[in-house]
Amino acid sequence: MSFDITVLGSSGGPLEGITCSYILKPSYITYKDIIQDELKQYLIAIDAGSGLNRITEIISTERTKEKDTLAMKVLSYYNDPLPIDQYSHPNISFSHEYGVCKLNKDSAPIELSFKILDLINNFLISHPHLDHINGLVINSPGFHYHSSKSVYGLKETTEALQNCIFNDIIWPNLVTEQNGSFLKLIELEPTKPMNIDDIYEVTPFELNHGKKHDNKTEYKSTSFLIKDSKTDQYILIFGDVEADRNAQSSKNKIIWEKISDLIIRRSLKTILIECSTPNLPAKEPRFGHMTPDSLIEELCTLGELISSKKSRYDVEPPLKDLNILITHVKERRSGHEPRRVILNELNELNERYKLGCHFSVMLTGLTYTV
Amino acid sequence: MSFDITVLGSSGGPLEGITCSYILKPSYITYKDIIQDELKQYLIAIDAGSGLNRITEIISTERTKEKDTLAMKVLSYYNDPLPIDQYSHPNISFSHEYGVCKLNKDSAPIELSFKILDLINNFLISHPHLDHINGLVINSPGFHYHSSKSVYGLKETTEALQNCIFNDIIWPNLVTEQNGSFLKLIELEPTKPMNIDDIYEVTPFELNHGKKHDNKTEYKSTSFLIKDSKTDQYILIFGDVEADRNAQSSKNKIIWEKISDLIIRRSLKTILIECSTPNLPAKEPRFGHMTPDSLIEELCTLGELISSKKSRYDVEPPLKDLNILITHVKERRSGHEPRRVILNELNELNERYKLGCHFSVMLTGLTYTV
Repeated sequence: MSFDITVLGSSGGPLEGITCSYILKPSYITYKDIIQDELKQYLIAIDAGSGLNRITEIISTERTKEKDTLAMKVLSYYNDPLPIDQYSHPNISFSHEYGVCKLNKDSAPIELSFKILDLINNFLISHPHLDHINGLVINSPGFHYHSSKSVYGLKETTEALQNCIFNDIIWPNLVTEQNGSFLKLIELEPTKPMNIDDIYEVTPFELNHGKKHDNKTEYKSTSFLIKDSKTDQYILIFGDVEADRNAQSSKNKIIWEKISDLIIRRSLKTILIECSTPNLPAKEPRFGHMTPDSLIEELCTLGELISSKKSRYDVEPPLKDLNILITHVKERRSGHEPRRVILNELNELNERYKLGCHFSVMLTGLTYTV
Repeated sequence: MSFDITVLGSSGGPLEGITCSYILKPSYITYKDIIQDELKQYLIAIDAGSGLNRITEIISTERTKEKDTLAMKVLSYYNDPLPIDQYSHPNISFSHEYGVCKLNKDSAPIELSFKILDLINNFLISHPHLDHINGLVINSPGFHYHSSKSVYGLKETTEALQNCIFNDIIWPNLVTEQNGSFLKLIELEPTKPMNIDDIYEVTPFELNHGKKHDNKTEYKSTSFLIKDSKTDQYILIFGDVEADRNAQSSKNKIIWEKISDLIIRRSLKTILIECSTPNLPAKEPRFGHMTPDSLIEELCTLGELISSKKSRYDVEPPLKDLNILITHVKERRSGHEPRRVILNELNELNERYKLGCHFSVMLTGLTYTV
């Protein structure tokens, strides 16, 4: 196994406080060791819609051995949730806890969670929509003075954070040197790899994420191809994204081209991507997001690229054993749990197009090992 | 009793998703009646750091009769919380639920919570700091199309929402007519009363909330004096605020002048105000917030104004039976629960200065009747 991904939020809203945020670490090191030895290079946050409150809640559940975990909470808002383990493919293991509570038996959950926050020094932000940055902003007064956390994003993202958020109007300006360098904004260039603390190599790719209200300009977003330098394993994590067909673009195809070789040589086994709603009638707007139909269409493109590069005697499904982790499902008014519908639709299409991948819908509060 | 206040969030951060937001209604009408008869004029939101997720969580707890309520959750992050009822003065009653679950027995918690959200058509925003607006923004895609919710604030607030948030960068522009009028931004003038749906009359007062990073410009905030037109009862709700002495200003004193007459004629029995941290050493920065020392100093000013207007034969404590509801307590790294410390400090000072008011620290998820 290569990576552990702790989901601090996997919802696409409109409920606040549970929107997208993931903490990544290599599987070869535990949270316990990271905290005990204060290892600052391993934990990396991808998007930050949620944050410290969710870390504290996971630890609190672990400490009190509560049966009602964070993962079950959002599901319990609906009438017809599946049992937790049915949201994940059997090949993926998951945990409800960090396994850190035995470390400091007298310390309160909030003390341990601040310790974890102190050890997350790098944030990759896919785009500046509020549901992907709120946690980073609200948590920032809890950062250690001179913690100098780094926030990486494409130019549009770092500029938006500086101009619209840390602008002494919406939030104090914590990003300039004179203010103690709570936060450093670091601009990424599309397709150019960035070394992070000699542990990770991150390559950003530009995505389309729907049209603005002028109906012309595109919202931009980012996917991050992350390599663990020690194991030479990769994971691909998407921000919000729409299908190439909807955007009349080929941005996603460029990414599929890039990773097809990695998949063939078994260096990339996991893609984390959004699927915001169940399939919709043709005329309904997607607001720059994926449905099962469009996600499968994208994965078919990836499958064709892989097939074209393989020996013609290879009869395996093109995406055999590739883990597709689904996030950013939008909550809805109806009592029917949308993750369940999306997972069913994806599994049916996976079968029909013989892709052979493994779908799991990520739940807030779980740590997945892939 | 005059008002019910449901606390969707009472924390001052840095934990996300539990920051300040209150729903106000007159006590003479129940949530059950409001939902059943779809009465759109009674519920009013003051600040919106939290929102739909917390409404759903309260309903979910009510539905499943869970013992671990939302109010207890944040406290459980610490080692030494008080029992819930010790955070409130005995004169105040509170509830963990809305009392609506028997209404629609088959509907899921999320269905009922969307119904409540649909019936909150007016938001008063004290200032545009993210911990006071995040819920409004993230929840907005869940508003009914053409719901035309009204967001009231001083000019600085409405301009910041338009320019920094609903600007097609941080969030889609949902505030212009052409986009279906999800939200109408309505500018308030300081000290000028505004009629809202013939139920409330709201008068905003400008507050100081600390210095920006240039160390010159002030963050502005707002307090709202809200009158229930039917009962002629008032409640005063503060956004983030610092003491007049710290701001070298008399903005708070102007408000105390205004309400002293209302208190004397028993028309204002409740003030909701922040107290962010326990008392601090003299040199530590307040970041534009209150401590028990500074809050008591402000209340002494109010007490003196009242005493000066009363008969000299009146020997009652000047703030007798005035309910002071404390919010915006900042969470902290240490395992010691800060609300408990603040409440103790306030009660001691109340005793020492013989003010005679009743202090309660508000907890997320509770509905207080005052």
